[in-house]
Amino acid sequence: MHEDICTIPGGHVTSVLGFLAGAVRAGIREDVDKLDLGILYSERPCAAAAVFTSNRVKAAPIVVCQKHLADGRAQAVVANSGCANACTGEDGLRDAREMAELTAAKLGLRPEDVVVASTGVIGCPMPMERVRPAIRDVAVSADGGGALAQAIMTTDTVPKQIAVRFAWHQPAEGRQYTIGGIAKGAGMIHPQMATMLCFLATDAPAESGFLGAALRQAVDASFNMITIDGDTSTNDMVVVLANGAAGGEPLAEGHPAAGLFLAALTQVCAHLAQAICRDGEGATKFIQVRVEGAASDADARRAAREIVRSLAVKTAVYGSDPNWGRILAAVGNSGADMVEESTTLYLGECCLYRGGRPLDYDESAAHAELARPEVDIRVDLGLGDGAATAWGCDIPDEYVRLNSAYRT
Amino acid sequence: MHEDICTIPGGHVTSVLGFLAGAVRAGIREDVDKLDLGILYSERPCAAAAVFTSNRVKAAPIVVCQKHLADGRAQAVVANSGCANACTGEDGLRDAREMAELTAAKLGLRPEDVVVASTGVIGCPMPMERVRPAIRDVAVSADGGGALAQAIMTTDTVPKQIAVRFAWHQPAEGRQYTIGGIAKGAGMIHPQMATMLCFLATDAPAESGFLGAALRQAVDASFNMITIDGDTSTNDMVVVLANGAAGGEPLAEGHPAAGLFLAALTQVCAHLAQAICRDGEGATKFIQVRVEGAASDADARRAAREIVRSLAVKTAVYGSDPNWGRILAAVGNSGADMVEESTTLYLGECCLYRGGRPLDYDESAAHAELARPEVDIRVDLGLGDGAATAWGCDIPDEYVRLNSAYRT
Repeated sequence: MHEDICTIPGGHVTSVLGFLAGAVRAGIREDVDKLDLGILYSERPCAAAAVFTSNRVKAAPIVVCQKHLADGRAQAVVANSGCANACTGEDGLRDAREMAELTAAKLGLRPEDVVVASTGVIGCPMPMERVRPAIRDVAVSADGGGALAQAIMTTDTVPKQIAVRFAWHQPAEGRQYTIGGIAKGAGMIHPQMATMLCFLATDAPAESGFLGAALRQAVDASFNMITIDGDTSTNDMVVVLANGAAGGEPLAEGHPAAGLFLAALTQVCAHLAQAICRDGEGATKFIQVRVEGAASDADARRAAREIVRSLAVKTAVYGSDPNWGRILAAVGNSGADMVEESTTLYLGECCLYRGGRPLDYDESAAHAELARPEVDIRVDLGLGDGAATAWGCDIPDEYVRLNSAYRT
Repeated sequence: MHEDICTIPGGHVTSVLGFLAGAVRAGIREDVDKLDLGILYSERPCAAAAVFTSNRVKAAPIVVCQKHLADGRAQAVVANSGCANACTGEDGLRDAREMAELTAAKLGLRPEDVVVASTGVIGCPMPMERVRPAIRDVAVSADGGGALAQAIMTTDTVPKQIAVRFAWHQPAEGRQYTIGGIAKGAGMIHPQMATMLCFLATDAPAESGFLGAALRQAVDASFNMITIDGDTSTNDMVVVLANGAAGGEPLAEGHPAAGLFLAALTQVCAHLAQAICRDGEGATKFIQVRVEGAASDADARRAAREIVRSLAVKTAVYGSDPNWGRILAAVGNSGADMVEESTTLYLGECCLYRGGRPLDYDESAAHAELARPEVDIRVDLGLGDGAATAWGCDIPDEYVRLNSAYRT
């Protein structure tokens, strides 16, 4: 947490100046009674940047967005849950384009300034006969951010949203900027709805090149450090829109507020990424893994991510079983440089392993560390200055319960 | 299956000429009542080769074996379940060496000619006070292969063993060689006991360089094509011993029977690898994935392995849910070259996707393909001649049941 960045209580994506949102129930899945289509709209044109899935199978809205965002400009997002519009061929592309066109016509924009995002089942056609009237019916307002957050939920049990504000002072000007965001997560054990979506809005002005670089850095330290199941979906997308409504010179490399903006953007992304882990399907515990002393930051990232990815670790955490060998095995499996003799392992305050051998630790204290709702794993590789933090959740279920109790 | 290679009914590792084995209950885990320590012994010195875990955390027996097998010779294996002797520091190395020394003394061998293998919990010291008398008590015999297969079992529900025989004829000589093997598998959802072990024996004579190359090829097409959970353990080991008891010139590159030997060794390894998948903890279905038409064999291997690794695919198979988009997404996630428009996807006989779009397939037929105990997935990437086959199993449990039925 940066001391100059404060979280707005109850804040969301339309807590940001000049952004409006709204959502309706389109009935995209007839059997699900919830908001499922929404729009985020900026009253002013925005600099825009996005990070997309690395999967070679890209959903139609991803293909359309990559084109629409090529100029670094956008002014609205239309998003739906219930249908991913992935693996749908030419028909899917046509439907995604039509969603952008209908939204643009409604708001008086060019279709190229509309971002399209979908989440839901892969391989099913978009039910456009229900989508068309729904887009027409959406009413956007300054308090619609919460409804939009609900409209993109699938198996999520809670909406994920946040807004932060930071001020910066220079002799010539004192300004205040806000960044708001909403996200939806994947199922814990698999990307059930095939999508992680995140929409970020800010009233800060920004050059789109700077905005893109800042977004990639923020995503690398947040969404790219959570592991739900190791699968990458066809629809994953993080988008940021900067409308400049709060005034000032556009943020760019070397701008005195650039560092503060990056810190605030990272804080928003980290909050949303962690919220996705906390809401993993059926998850009972949130896991934070800190790796320090790695030969490089890249090695630390590899090791931290492999620990939260490992099913062996997840199930041991679920069973509160301090089977720490699995954590070391995950590090050994990660590709990061490591030497057993220089490695130290902590569960919370409890040091379990050091100098190439298990310590004579207090088993009940180790168990207690794992019984917390927020489990803290820390590994010091003793090789250098590389450090990274990753987040995840445990894997619960009756089947796993039997196995996770194996050691005890 | 090669037509000149026949499986010996009820065959196992001591179906091979000159190999003896035996096992006892050492009580390494006091709460488990089963055979847990055994010895495989060849009456003659053997050429030996092994493939070890790629994990940087290597169990003590792995470290010891790498040293003992450096000269390409061995004559016995001592193996235990219940304790992995991993992350145990200098004490663990001392214990692993002592296990080799005691076995060597008992059999009149040099300690360097004994392979040591352990499977069980990581980070617990080997209970040598129980291991020492157990090694003394093992009685080896020509029908002891089955007992040894049981002694290395952990959460396995059935022993995994096979023996095959092949004859080859040349003007000067007609000979018959046998290859036998036993293996133990990891738990389905995590390497519960931290180990996949496999011991192979043959009465064919072989140069150790040839034997090592043949083993690597056989393992690449078998054990390296199964995915239990994506974790690589600290103890994984496949060892082959060739004692030459059946006579003839040592197999080497260019030997007229070299190809047949490689085929037979691969067949034994593939049988044991598939047996590990079939016995995945709680698994209800065996999955075979064939990828063809890839730009290269390496790409085909990547794609096939990623499909059987994907939790999204495993859970869909468990629920007999033809959610084929997850299979395409796994291919897209694998790093293999792929183009949606040239990709064709089959479930058994049922073609679901071709030419960039879903086909109008028979949903009940697709469901029936997934309801089989052996599920067959085939992907033609339409790009080249690369092909590979991978094997795995589904993920069952109440938690997943809810999710796997999502689409229906």
